[in-house]
Amino acid sequence: MRKRGIPRRITFKPLEKELGFGRSISANERLMNTDGSFNVVREAINVWDNTYHYLIHMTWGQFFLLALVFFGVMNSLFAALYLCFGIENLSGTTPGSFTDNFLQAFFFSSQTLTTVGYGHISPSGIPSSILASFESFMGLLLFALISGLLYGRFSRPRAHIHYSENMLVAPYKDGMALMFRMVNARVSELIETEVQVLMAFNQRDETGKTTRKFYPLTLEINKISFFSLSWTIVHPLDEKSPISGFSSQELIDANAEFMVLVKGTDETTHQNVFSRHSYTADEFVWNAKFSPIIILNEGTPRVITSQIGKFERMMNDE
Amino acid sequence: MRKRGIPRRITFKPLEKELGFGRSISANERLMNTDGSFNVVREAINVWDNTYHYLIHMTWGQFFLLALVFFGVMNSLFAALYLCFGIENLSGTTPGSFTDNFLQAFFFSSQTLTTVGYGHISPSGIPSSILASFESFMGLLLFALISGLLYGRFSRPRAHIHYSENMLVAPYKDGMALMFRMVNARVSELIETEVQVLMAFNQRDETGKTTRKFYPLTLEINKISFFSLSWTIVHPLDEKSPISGFSSQELIDANAEFMVLVKGTDETTHQNVFSRHSYTADEFVWNAKFSPIIILNEGTPRVITSQIGKFERMMNDE
Amino acid sequence: MRKRGIPRRITFKPLEKELGFGRSISANERLMNTDGSFNVVREAINVWDNTYHYLIHMTWGQFFLLALVFFGVMNSLFAALYLCFGIENLSGTTPGSFTDNFLQAFFFSSQTLTTVGYGHISPSGIPSSILASFESFMGLLLFALISGLLYGRFSRPRAHIHYSENMLVAPYKDGMALMFRMVNARVSELIETEVQVLMAFNQRDETGKTTRKFYPLTLEINKISFFSLSWTIVHPLDEKSPISGFSSQELIDANAEFMVLVKGTDETTHQNVFSRHSYTADEFVWNAKFSPIIILNEGTPRVITSQIGKFERMMNDE
Amino acid sequence: MRKRGIPRRITFKPLEKELGFGRSISANERLMNTDGSFNVVREAINVWDNTYHYLIHMTWGQFFLLALVFFGVMNSLFAALYLCFGIENLSGTTPGSFTDNFLQAFFFSSQTLTTVGYGHISPSGIPSSILASFESFMGLLLFALISGLLYGRFSRPRAHIHYSENMLVAPYKDGMALMFRMVNARVSELIETEVQVLMAFNQRDETGKTTRKFYPLTLEINKISFFSLSWTIVHPLDEKSPISGFSSQELIDANAEFMVLVKGTDETTHQNVFSRHSYTADEFVWNAKFSPIIILNEGTPRVITSQIGKFERMMNDE
Repeated sequence: MRKRGIPRRITFKPLEKELGFGRSISANERLMNTDGSFNVVREAINVWDNTYHYLIHMTWGQFFLLALVFFGVMNSLFAALYLCFGIENLSGTTPGSFTDNFLQAFFFSSQTLTTVGYGHISPSGIPSSILASFESFMGLLLFALISGLLYGRFSRPRAHIHYSENMLVAPYKDGMALMFRMVNARVSELIETEVQVLMAFNQRDETGKTTRKFYPLTLEINKISFFSLSWTIVHPLDEKSPISGFSSQELIDANAEFMVLVKGTDETTHQNVFSRHSYTADEFVWNAKFSPIIILNEGTPRVITSQIGKFERMMNDE
Repeated sequence: MRKRGIPRRITFKPLEKELGFGRSISANERLMNTDGSFNVVREAINVWDNTYHYLIHMTWGQFFLLALVFFGVMNSLFAALYLCFGIENLSGTTPGSFTDNFLQAFFFSSQTLTTVGYGHISPSGIPSSILASFESFMGLLLFALISGLLYGRFSRPRAHIHYSENMLVAPYKDGMALMFRMVNARVSELIETEVQVLMAFNQRDETGKTTRKFYPLTLEINKISFFSLSWTIVHPLDEKSPISGFSSQELIDANAEFMVLVKGTDETTHQNVFSRHSYTADEFVWNAKFSPIIILNEGTPRVITSQIGKFERMMNDE
Repeated sequence: MRKRGIPRRITFKPLEKELGFGRSISANERLMNTDGSFNVVREAINVWDNTYHYLIHMTWGQFFLLALVFFGVMNSLFAALYLCFGIENLSGTTPGSFTDNFLQAFFFSSQTLTTVGYGHISPSGIPSSILASFESFMGLLLFALISGLLYGRFSRPRAHIHYSENMLVAPYKDGMALMFRMVNARVSELIETEVQVLMAFNQRDETGKTTRKFYPLTLEINKISFFSLSWTIVHPLDEKSPISGFSSQELIDANAEFMVLVKGTDETTHQNVFSRHSYTADEFVWNAKFSPIIILNEGTPRVITSQIGKFERMMNDE
Repeated sequence: MRKRGIPRRITFKPLEKELGFGRSISANERLMNTDGSFNVVREAINVWDNTYHYLIHMTWGQFFLLALVFFGVMNSLFAALYLCFGIENLSGTTPGSFTDNFLQAFFFSSQTLTTVGYGHISPSGIPSSILASFESFMGLLLFALISGLLYGRFSRPRAHIHYSENMLVAPYKDGMALMFRMVNARVSELIETEVQVLMAFNQRDETGKTTRKFYPLTLEINKISFFSLSWTIVHPLDEKSPISGFSSQELIDANAEFMVLVKGTDETTHQNVFSRHSYTADEFVWNAKFSPIIILNEGTPRVITSQIGKFERMMNDE
């Protein structure tokens, strides 16, 4: 009897190193999270080198809050400096308690930093005037940066692909095939879209040592001219497939993971965009097929994006 | 007798799935509109995910109007808030009727949002001052976004190709060829321009079921170094053509559609640009040839863009 | 005796159509100007479609002047509107002659359009206030556009390649070769630079009709990893060359033109850049070789960009 | 006995010209600095043509200082002009000593250039008003440029790859291999990363003349789908390697240099990025292997970036 977790025949050359994971990668963890990020911690990374990356990838709420906090901190710092130079050097203010003075300096500072400059408060004396001049200069630079980032975030080319929740083992021609479905959730076409599926798999060698191997899966179609609607990716489970003949449990035991890599050109920005997804063997549904996602009732085809993951189980369930 | 609408011999492998339409696509509708967009409705699409796309693709008039409405709404909201804090906290205003007060608050708001800040109205009191400070901060961010979009719209790389209105069946070498003409309506060269023509066609199989098949058409030249002038695309109607031997009516009955996909590099922005067009069989002109579009009178060749679709009928019209 | 202007043997397939010029191109004119633009006039081109192209390609002086004129015109228009609403609705102005009033309105307008808003003049009354509010909104949009263009012009990826003034026919291995030299005049490396040379040539066919044919020239090296210094492009005049055996006069008579197309990736912007140049047969120098352009005196090699075109004539001049 | 510095057998075609260095390159200098820049001086380069390059590549400190100096100089120039037109034409100023007047004009100028425009000083009279109008126009343009540059610097796609300090000659399969290690110091994935290693080498020909030859080195893996963690580049020192059989000293004598060229797509900006590095033969460590850089203790793999260069010497050190 064949022992569970040890694939019987894998006759293809694994390409572990080509994925950039190396040989020493853990065999028990998912390599790619479902959002396409890698399940890896990088230590001793210089945060400043990655500022742009963080600022682009944080949520809109975080970004807005950070900008607002930054605005407040800058104003407070400049307000403190104006107070050092004397509240009397801000004409138009009414000297009062420290809090009153600070607030008036703070408001003047914000009017200077944003260049709104009402003028009901204005600097007098050389030090305060120089400081105000410098602050307005800084204000322009800082807002330029924030503005640039804001636009950079907004216009960043991104694929927005929805994946079916499950991978199905569905009837295909005379046999079966592994299938999952993608839908382009953007109005923008994805031109010349290519898809690659890589399987990671725990494999025991002759000495009994388990290592994680990587195999590319052959796809029925791996490139389309336009990814405008939905696309069902099909890997035929024929004799050439590295996983044909495995049972559901064997795949789970071997910690099988299927990494999906999509690449295309976004038509609005005309730039290359990427999308990644990962399925594990316990997200398989055996003997099922996807329900139609395109409706043709009224002539013009309609794609119902929300139906992406819907499937029907077949009679002879395993 | 051969039945109309059933092609006699199609010996090439159709590539229906490679276009991303799937097999279930309607056989009676045009797949691609003449402006290159797909004749498809997507439902359950998240509008917010596509904001950038909509803002970039709307007309200039729509964009300007939207920005103006947004400016008005923002000002009204802030004006209402200033009124809540009391019109007396906007120094320089003359309290009056509600409308008067609202308008004065509205004008102050717009002076703050645009950072023009004349100062004849200025905030007093802590709440109004904080609000004004926040509004000027918001103003800078919002205008940054609008400005970025404005520039993004303006500088977006786009091909601007004019297509002849008709596809001609014209004499070519010893036989005939399918021809259409394109002209580059931009001053910018299109470098390394490639063209692909795909035919969609209703085909009846042995069981009598009609499905839509897709065939690529072989072109005389499908890539040029520069698309600077006009380019006549030629598909020879020889024995290797999937449509040779069909009559005009047969093509119309089979709902034949010819999708043109152009790809090149725009020389001003150095980015890839795409253009699409579609012809249906009823836009065919049989036995005609294009009139010259390049004039050589005075040495330097002149391209008359407006002549793009002009053709001359031949003697023996079908 | 062989007739001048009729090449003896051209055994290669010409690729006239692949250049996008068509067959009807004039045989007497230079196709490409030395700055790489095509010698072609396009008529009935929509100017508005090409606005971005013009604004990016005009000189800095023209651009600045255009912006300044636009600024003046906008201010004048708004000034006229403010005058319509009454000079008395601009508080802080001193009503006087029409010119005085217009100038004061003009200055107020410019303070509004640029959002400088000193406030010594400020709008009063509803119509003037609305107009001022609208003008500051327009000002932000317009300056956003001008600013974007300004930056777009500045940051546009461009190759800046200097070409030797002449093409040399120089000794090469056992025979001769056609050579020209390029130097990268930017500090930025050009990565993965490719060069293509195409010859245009008047050729008489059997019927005596002269048409312009295009031939690609084989190059010793047509791709380098870095174009950091100078590069001498070499086309060996061996038996496989379409022009071997022609005399200087024959090439001039045949109106031979050599179009150089360079493509690379600019390292500062990481975008593809292109450069073009053209040589005609009368820019040939026979029996000469380029003088060294790289000096090695002090260890670190020095490239003397200005020496790009320098050559030495050989003994046996033709 | 074989003479030092003369390689015994190099059976591969060198590709000197393909690197763009030409044949005349110095044999004694390092061609590429460790930061990837070329060890070359370009003379007679037009500085203005390269302004953008300099402004993008200078340090942040230099950039900020330059912007500040520029701001000061512009303000001083405009201040001088305002003084020419008379300090009395700046309402709100208190005429005093020349320094006092200049400073007040300077402050007014800075309020105009940054469009803060408090209004406690405002222009009066036609010349001063025109000048102020022009200055605010200039201010918008200049700050637009500075802002654009600031953002351009920030968002510029760059690879940030750390290289091991040394190249190791480590055991590999049955023999030895040349190895170095790279780590991606950015949080952003590098997609479809390719690496090329080129060796430069002083080689004496039959006539005894030493010229510098270039050889590409065959790598075990030269392309990976993701460069997310660390990557050890391996050049097997088998019989096909141009340097197999050389001793450490021979390589140093021959001035051997190993240029590393990395190319990939940055996932945040979706643009191609490049990185270069260079090793010389005296940076070799013989008979050593890299210490692990990935730690698997707690399931999720951790990459310790700072360990990039760590290695262990083997027993039988040469």
